[in-house]
Amino acid sequence: MAVKLVFDRDSGELFSDEPETVSSVVRGFYGEMRGGRVHFTPEEALYLIDIRNGQCTDASLNPMKFNDVASSFRLPKLMARYHTFKDWRDRGLVIRPIAEAKGKYGRNPVKKYPPGKFRAPKYSVEGLFFAEDLMTVIDDEAVGRELYSEHWLGQFGSYKAEQRGRISKLDVYETLFMMKHCGLSLRNATQKRVVAEAKRRRPDFPLMYQVYEDWRLRGYVLKTGFKFGTHFRLYLPGASPARAPDEWIHSKHVVQVFPRNEKMVISEWARAIRVAHSVKKTFILAIPGKDVKRKRGMELDFLLYHRKKGGIETPKEDPPRFAMLSLSEEECIGGAELADAIRSAKEFGLDLMLAIADRETAVTYYRVKRLEIPGSPYEYYEIEWEQP
Amino acid sequence: MAVKLVFDRDSGELFSDEPETVSSVVRGFYGEMRGGRVHFTPEEALYLIDIRNGQCTDASLNPMKFNDVASSFRLPKLMARYHTFKDWRDRGLVIRPIAEAKGKYGRNPVKKYPPGKFRAPKYSVEGLFFAEDLMTVIDDEAVGRELYSEHWLGQFGSYKAEQRGRISKLDVYETLFMMKHCGLSLRNATQKRVVAEAKRRRPDFPLMYQVYEDWRLRGYVLKTGFKFGTHFRLYLPGASPARAPDEWIHSKHVVQVFPRNEKMVISEWARAIRVAHSVKKTFILAIPGKDVKRKRGMELDFLLYHRKKGGIETPKEDPPRFAMLSLSEEECIGGAELADAIRSAKEFGLDLMLAIADRETAVTYYRVKRLEIPGSPYEYYEIEWEQP
Repeated sequence: MAVKLVFDRDSGELFSDEPETVSSVVRGFYGEMRGGRVHFTPEEALYLIDIRNGQCTDASLNPMKFNDVASSFRLPKLMARYHTFKDWRDRGLVIRPIAEAKGKYGRNPVKKYPPGKFRAPKYSVEGLFFAEDLMTVIDDEAVGRELYSEHWLGQFGSYKAEQRGRISKLDVYETLFMMKHCGLSLRNATQKRVVAEAKRRRPDFPLMYQVYEDWRLRGYVLKTGFKFGTHFRLYLPGASPARAPDEWIHSKHVVQVFPRNEKMVISEWARAIRVAHSVKKTFILAIPGKDVKRKRGMELDFLLYHRKKGGIETPKEDPPRFAMLSLSEEECIGGAELADAIRSAKEFGLDLMLAIADRETAVTYYRVKRLEIPGSPYEYYEIEWEQP
Repeated sequence: MAVKLVFDRDSGELFSDEPETVSSVVRGFYGEMRGGRVHFTPEEALYLIDIRNGQCTDASLNPMKFNDVASSFRLPKLMARYHTFKDWRDRGLVIRPIAEAKGKYGRNPVKKYPPGKFRAPKYSVEGLFFAEDLMTVIDDEAVGRELYSEHWLGQFGSYKAEQRGRISKLDVYETLFMMKHCGLSLRNATQKRVVAEAKRRRPDFPLMYQVYEDWRLRGYVLKTGFKFGTHFRLYLPGASPARAPDEWIHSKHVVQVFPRNEKMVISEWARAIRVAHSVKKTFILAIPGKDVKRKRGMELDFLLYHRKKGGIETPKEDPPRFAMLSLSEEECIGGAELADAIRSAKEFGLDLMLAIADRETAVTYYRVKRLEIPGSPYEYYEIEWEQP
């Protein structure tokens, strides 16, 4: 039997009071019972029309097709919401409006990373700064070698072949860090000039450095993440490039910095996570600076129920599992907006699930987990590609 | 025996006239013989000091270390040039200054793609445009199904499950293309508004569409490349989503658009190529619009000699194989600059090799091959990750 729906043009309500429809949709966790009728959200109604062969009419019994119903609502990003809703449903899982959230579900444990501490070596060493390359060369062979093998600062010799060559190369993060903490001076530049040159090339340099220094001071080692499509790759405290022949420590994490005031097309953002996933690294997102609650934050879209042992979670028996933010491929998101969404999900005690509908309506999921490094004033997030 | 070099502070020349050094470096294809002396470029001299244990002095026999020599030159991106030079040399291959190029080597064949033609279906069909989602829905089931199965325009039903659902979704490129060529009208928007909404979201939309239309009119099928980290994925003329059960045509190419007036950090640019490579797709670069020779183009850096059967290519016996552009991870490049470099390499009859030194001085190579689609006014390029 086809599901039957009514759209009341005056009130803008979508509902059904046809007994067979009511019992069928309530069993499937669609809609909300109020006064003997089941009321639907636009996404639910569109789904029933599109997929469950639902027949919709207005109050005068004129038939209404998908576009007739959709065009009756002035809802932002209705298609992003509809397609992510549809995809979750198509997986046999339950999805409900975020408005039903009752908060503090306690389903978002914080992941703790091991503590560590950087013991700053005190040198009195000089380097030459190459402004256009944002790189410093130290040609004191003994210091360069020690810096590399003891602290993994700079690249002595050649990459993966430190015996080849006798100079040491520091990138601009290492340069500034060593000037501040390890007694490096440059024969041709001050700290101020290094920062200015770096900012000229990438205006977000101070934020990038802030993240670099935060991890470094806690004993972590950060090197370029270029090969993995991210800003940094990361090693746990105690990591060293010294190794037995033919051995190499592989990093397991990469770090990407997303400044609050930066806007990025979702597709570019997702690309960075994809590269990390393809090389089997854990993707860590850093949104540096203080989290400020803005007046109008990013609103979440849905509550997600997932699978459980022997079946699926339902609103009847289980708390929701995730809070979902619905996005589309060509939409832009800012660092501050993403931070808003993460904070809202956290207030519900849920992990955030980012659902991105591409131009072909296929949906990709990224789960955001909170992460803590002991001693750090910042929050970081692990982002995982999920196939629900 | 250590290699011996002299730096003449007055003339800025780097040379050697020490017989053992001369014979050793000439055999290795370093430097240039002039008046009984071998003269070095800064990159060559730095390499001999760093790697070959070269001893450099000034004319008064004061020793000069790596940084003493490097700081004597005001050369742009000396480190990017040095590290890419070093990496090629470290692979046992010969690399020479671009100034030696004599032009028209004829070593850059154009790859030809198969011809095709789009047969425009003429419908009179209406859709609803969702401006925030940049998407159009057609809820005429018969037309939507035919559009999808006959022309692979839009996504009927669900992604990889077209039997699931009865509406068809067009992305914004398909929307505009169908309005121009296939009789689509929108109940809530004109062509002009579609373009305006798309430009508001992504200012480069007209260029993106130009590339989309160019391939589409030649019978190729373009769908979103979201899953592969690029703007489009591409199918050869004749491709269809219709298939036997459990079969799916896999695309083999992805297309990324790089507008001339856009600037991009090299690391972001490289990331797109990496994703394509990790999913085994051929990466196609599109620089839309007319190629205009600018007054000051991007200068190439080196001529590369590669391997050949039984050995390596050398300037004595072989023409060069590639023209190299040296870049560093955090440098920016514009679409117009890249087009300049490609054009310059083409004038020499060589493929361009992009060499990117990361912050740790590891070098990644991308080879740029010319590509022709019959009938297209534009040039496209295949970009391949190479391990020389």
